[in-house]
Amino acid sequence: MTNPQSPIEIKPQVPPPPAGASDVLRAEVSKIESVDDRVELFSKIPQTESEWLAFIAAFDKPVVEGVRATIDQSPITVERDEIEGVTVYHVIPDEIDPAHKDHLFVHIHGGAYILNSGEACMAEAIAITLVTKMRALSIDYRMAPRHPYPAAVDDVATVYKHLLTQRPARSIAMGGSSAGGGLTLATVQQLIKKNIDVPGALFVGTPGSDLSGTGDTFYTNLGVDRNIPIYDGVIEAMIRLYADGRDLKDPLISPIYGDFHRFPPTLLVTGTRDLFLSNTVRTHIKLLQAGAVADILVYEGVSHGDYLHVLAAPEAQHFLEVLDQFFTQHLQLTPKKAALMLERMNSALNLGLARSTSS
Amino acid sequence: MTNPQSPIEIKPQVPPPPAGASDVLRAEVSKIESVDDRVELFSKIPQTESEWLAFIAAFDKPVVEGVRATIDQSPITVERDEIEGVTVYHVIPDEIDPAHKDHLFVHIHGGAYILNSGEACMAEAIAITLVTKMRALSIDYRMAPRHPYPAAVDDVATVYKHLLTQRPARSIAMGGSSAGGGLTLATVQQLIKKNIDVPGALFVGTPGSDLSGTGDTFYTNLGVDRNIPIYDGVIEAMIRLYADGRDLKDPLISPIYGDFHRFPPTLLVTGTRDLFLSNTVRTHIKLLQAGAVADILVYEGVSHGDYLHVLAAPEAQHFLEVLDQFFTQHLQLTPKKAALMLERMNSALNLGLARSTSS
Repeated sequence: MTNPQSPIEIKPQVPPPPAGASDVLRAEVSKIESVDDRVELFSKIPQTESEWLAFIAAFDKPVVEGVRATIDQSPITVERDEIEGVTVYHVIPDEIDPAHKDHLFVHIHGGAYILNSGEACMAEAIAITLVTKMRALSIDYRMAPRHPYPAAVDDVATVYKHLLTQRPARSIAMGGSSAGGGLTLATVQQLIKKNIDVPGALFVGTPGSDLSGTGDTFYTNLGVDRNIPIYDGVIEAMIRLYADGRDLKDPLISPIYGDFHRFPPTLLVTGTRDLFLSNTVRTHIKLLQAGAVADILVYEGVSHGDYLHVLAAPEAQHFLEVLDQFFTQHLQLTPKKAALMLERMNSALNLGLARSTSS
Repeated sequence: MTNPQSPIEIKPQVPPPPAGASDVLRAEVSKIESVDDRVELFSKIPQTESEWLAFIAAFDKPVVEGVRATIDQSPITVERDEIEGVTVYHVIPDEIDPAHKDHLFVHIHGGAYILNSGEACMAEAIAITLVTKMRALSIDYRMAPRHPYPAAVDDVATVYKHLLTQRPARSIAMGGSSAGGGLTLATVQQLIKKNIDVPGALFVGTPGSDLSGTGDTFYTNLGVDRNIPIYDGVIEAMIRLYADGRDLKDPLISPIYGDFHRFPPTLLVTGTRDLFLSNTVRTHIKLLQAGAVADILVYEGVSHGDYLHVLAAPEAQHFLEVLDQFFTQHLQLTPKKAALMLERMNSALNLGLARSTSS
């Protein structure tokens, strides 16, 4: 247990549940079942396509059931649709926030480019819609093993470009978590390369921005993240199916190695126990270095995606409120709202100017 | 090694140096000496006042030597001064950035309310002055064991209130790291309570905002942080000397438990290996929840205060540039600059309004 390259040695330890987190989150972190279940689920790599499909079906089934139950109980309507051959789900709140009347959230689900197909894709979109009261469209993009890279990016770009024939780019927010965050970044990098107008704002949650295993918290939060208790094994195998022989440091696969210039305003979210904490903070700093507006939220005791897994936690509710404000702030304004803001900023600045002159 | 309250078990591990960090930082992290030296330094608690004073003298000596060497080699002038009985050091760059002509950075040093007295206090102020080209004033506030709480807060408040007789509050930035960050937060909370104008902007680096040992990364980054390899022992003893019998969760000692309403814009900084990562992110979220403008930077592979210990690292340079921008953005504008900004915002908004109307 020595490494001539590193003086750092992590000793065995059982950290207490995070005392600075909310009661709801802490109770969830204290459940032993969740970790054991997931270790077992992610420990045996499927070997054939049919084994993979069985693994995927077993994983997705409870997610679909959860999505259906939520839809039944929630003030939203969901419609399955197709856009240029790509399946999408419209998630429409019964009551739309007037501030988001002209806005659309294009949701890119996570699941290591393998999981969460069909109705399972929209779990996150529903959670966001219920708080923001903003229309969402969740893309059921094609995935590995049958459709490796570039199918997912192509599907997202196809849907997005179609939407541009109907609405201005700045009325669209795009984003998602984990693979959905990575896919959002990769797609926007390709849009920028092709000089296509980018969305008005992005949401990038605990992104799979570096799929090569590079990132400090892949080590320092190993065993600490309750949602991804192991990364080697099934998850790494899923990534390799998606990459389809490409180098995992290819920017098409790991957008952290791509270009972040001309990126739209981006909100990132992660937690202190997130295995992808490094992925998230490295992406945030890259965005800032490229001149983008980029904000990051890091929640105490939150593991990979907990801000969406434990929706009853105040941490999740705070995140969703900040996301709502971020979209409101950066998406295209209605003429009426722009005029109001102009008026307010003028009076604030005139006041500041007066104070500054008098002092 | 089981805990009925927690399903999380950290296994022994030697994480590689952070591959996503800069070469300079990674080389520094790979130095074995630093950790071993510090473990030894912080493992034996002094028992008497004279043992404490010897410990302090041994710690501060190389810091003072480093500060003197830096002053000799740098385009700055340093002047020792007294303000209402409190020792301060003016740090004046040979060339002042015109954007900061009217600004002053009031620096509150770290060192667990015990260390870095005298000339040692201004190490961080010098690093910040050299990049921002902004005047700084570093406060050599009284410390334990001779002067426990509230001496430090009183000294900082005394100097700040004196400065208010000379310049507008919004021309002043205040801040520091570790205990300096905690002391900044505690002082501003007291200013707000007393209805005294707060500084225009704060810098709060890896703050000692919770000195009670609460915070997830006190556990999950234990042994990972190369600068504070142990917290129990000498550091905890220093905190108790400062608290002087007070509950460590008293907001006067641990400002995380205090009120953050009406706080000025605050920039926070930490890293993935920081033992105070939880302190920093919890403070950030509290500030946002209280309605403050608050930005956070989390650097890959950075331990407690590395952004100031490894100044040659691109991470440190990036942080200092963002800090400079943050101060420029939030401190009081000159009338000329305010007029220019007003003009620019008007045209940007009018343009947005035109676009919005035409689409």
